[in-house]
Amino acid sequence: MAGGRDRVVLDAMGGDHGPAETVPAALAAYREYGVPVTLVGRADEIHQRLRRHGSLDEVDVQHADDVVPMTERGGRTASRRASSLMVGCELARREGLPFVSAGSTGAVVASAVRTFGRREGVRRPALAVALPGMSGSTVLVDAGGTADPTAEMLAQFATLGAAYARDVLGVRDPAVGLLSIGSEPGKGNRLVRDAARLLPDLPVRFRGNVEGHDVLAGTVDVVVTDGFTGNIVLKNIEGCVRTVLGLAARAGITDAGPLEEVARLYAADTHGGAALLGLAGTVVVAHGSSSAAAIARACVVARDLAAGEAPAPVNGHRAAGRVT
Amino acid sequence: MAGGRDRVVLDAMGGDHGPAETVPAALAAYREYGVPVTLVGRADEIHQRLRRHGSLDEVDVQHADDVVPMTERGGRTASRRASSLMVGCELARREGLPFVSAGSTGAVVASAVRTFGRREGVRRPALAVALPGMSGSTVLVDAGGTADPTAEMLAQFATLGAAYARDVLGVRDPAVGLLSIGSEPGKGNRLVRDAARLLPDLPVRFRGNVEGHDVLAGTVDVVVTDGFTGNIVLKNIEGCVRTVLGLAARAGITDAGPLEEVARLYAADTHGGAALLGLAGTVVVAHGSSSAAAIARACVVARDLAAGEAPAPVNGHRAAGRVT
Repeated sequence: MAGGRDRVVLDAMGGDHGPAETVPAALAAYREYGVPVTLVGRADEIHQRLRRHGSLDEVDVQHADDVVPMTERGGRTASRRASSLMVGCELARREGLPFVSAGSTGAVVASAVRTFGRREGVRRPALAVALPGMSGSTVLVDAGGTADPTAEMLAQFATLGAAYARDVLGVRDPAVGLLSIGSEPGKGNRLVRDAARLLPDLPVRFRGNVEGHDVLAGTVDVVVTDGFTGNIVLKNIEGCVRTVLGLAARAGITDAGPLEEVARLYAADTHGGAALLGLAGTVVVAHGSSSAAAIARACVVARDLAAGEAPAPVNGHRAAGRVT
Repeated sequence: MAGGRDRVVLDAMGGDHGPAETVPAALAAYREYGVPVTLVGRADEIHQRLRRHGSLDEVDVQHADDVVPMTERGGRTASRRASSLMVGCELARREGLPFVSAGSTGAVVASAVRTFGRREGVRRPALAVALPGMSGSTVLVDAGGTADPTAEMLAQFATLGAAYARDVLGVRDPAVGLLSIGSEPGKGNRLVRDAARLLPDLPVRFRGNVEGHDVLAGTVDVVVTDGFTGNIVLKNIEGCVRTVLGLAARAGITDAGPLEEVARLYAADTHGGAALLGLAGTVVVAHGSSSAAAIARACVVARDLAAGEAPAPVNGHRAAGRVT
């Protein structure tokens, strides 16, 4: 059995494909990246798949009876004490290990908040992803943790996002922008207009409103938004990259290599997971449709985050972000 | 002087560059597309620029003393009766002509609502843009008309968007999706969860929630969202296209032609303007940073919309959308 110090706890039942992807993910995390994994979920299903991969001794297994379906929004999740999500979170908390799940974002957030608790003074957790652009990465926060935050929560996301940019991406004094419609002060919906009044008083370098086209432009280091808008922006980028590369191929690009290089930069398999910020523990949420490779990367990100290290650069960009 | 039937009224002072772009835009609309334009704004400035282009007799000019700044959100705009926006709207309403402005979206919406009034039963107007994708165009509505709609308004946007897809894009029975986080029913923020309960009762083919990656994927013909999220998605696509093409070029694409073809498909200059739906009149809002070419295209879109025709296809796609 592999050593325990850098171990990661992985929700075996999370994601659209459950153990079909999480079991090979756990094996890949250990074999390719040296990250030992404890899989939490239905032990018989997990063991059956481990046997198929000829490997019962490379991965720890912790049984959990119940499975939270991908359709669950979060509300009652924390009361499902026997679920792989809650058993996994509890194990991770008890042993001081990072936790990874490709389950429903709402359900992961609810379970993680209940188990780890929020860091002192934090009202709600937020998901941070690092998006690659022309000039390095930009942190998008919240990418789906809290769909209906208050202005005060949005202001806290700015502080959490700036800390992530500093600690994980190594940006010394991150510039923070508030995602809105129109860059002039006073433009936006009610939530953003209220938050814009709070941000100048925070100990972050606030640069005012930024717009949709700024997200990948490197205008700021941290783009702050609510979890609804952030999640839509994140997935919109995924779809847009696919469409643009598809249209370029159709328009007659004969040299496919560069297109594939760009596609790889934005692929969930490369990046792996989004960090859930503001908790008294390390939690990484992987995309619900994640492949084994993506979940393995999420385990690496979680290990690195917990160790307080920046995740290893991929394609010249820091690895991070992708979410449900 | 050019004939009056297909005439378009253009706010000469709107946009980041005012008459520097709107005057050549009016000339281009007339010379290249046969659309006669009445420019509304400071007559001395407009005449001075017309003289510079050696053309005082190809464009009508209507004087308006006041200019609504691009920073104005809308609230008091309608009380600025002498502004180019209000004078222009009033002229268009009186003569039954379409109106075009590259001014602040909020200000254009406020002035247009005040002047033209809403169509019977419509609570709030919405901006519709047609976004090109791999399989034809998708209507995004609202792309920035109403930042904080109610669930009832969102449901109306579905009806307005479906009518636009039918009348302008020629889709016989448009499929409508509600933009959210997670495709399962019940996922989303409060607004979307409330709207999802209203949409099944409407006379549109409602296909449930769609996600950020569906916007360009052709999953549905109409994507319904609030004006805040819609505007951010729209501009996010602009930025994403730029970034992906930039990264592809940097990755070593030697054959630039196909990349330029894709860039053109998404350029504001190709598309021109977004339609403001739900009013008793035709109003097209152009991107604030529009070039003369983009504003000229917006005039063509307005003329075609008013005539009840689909705008002429550009690059195999229907021309429409782009906004402030």
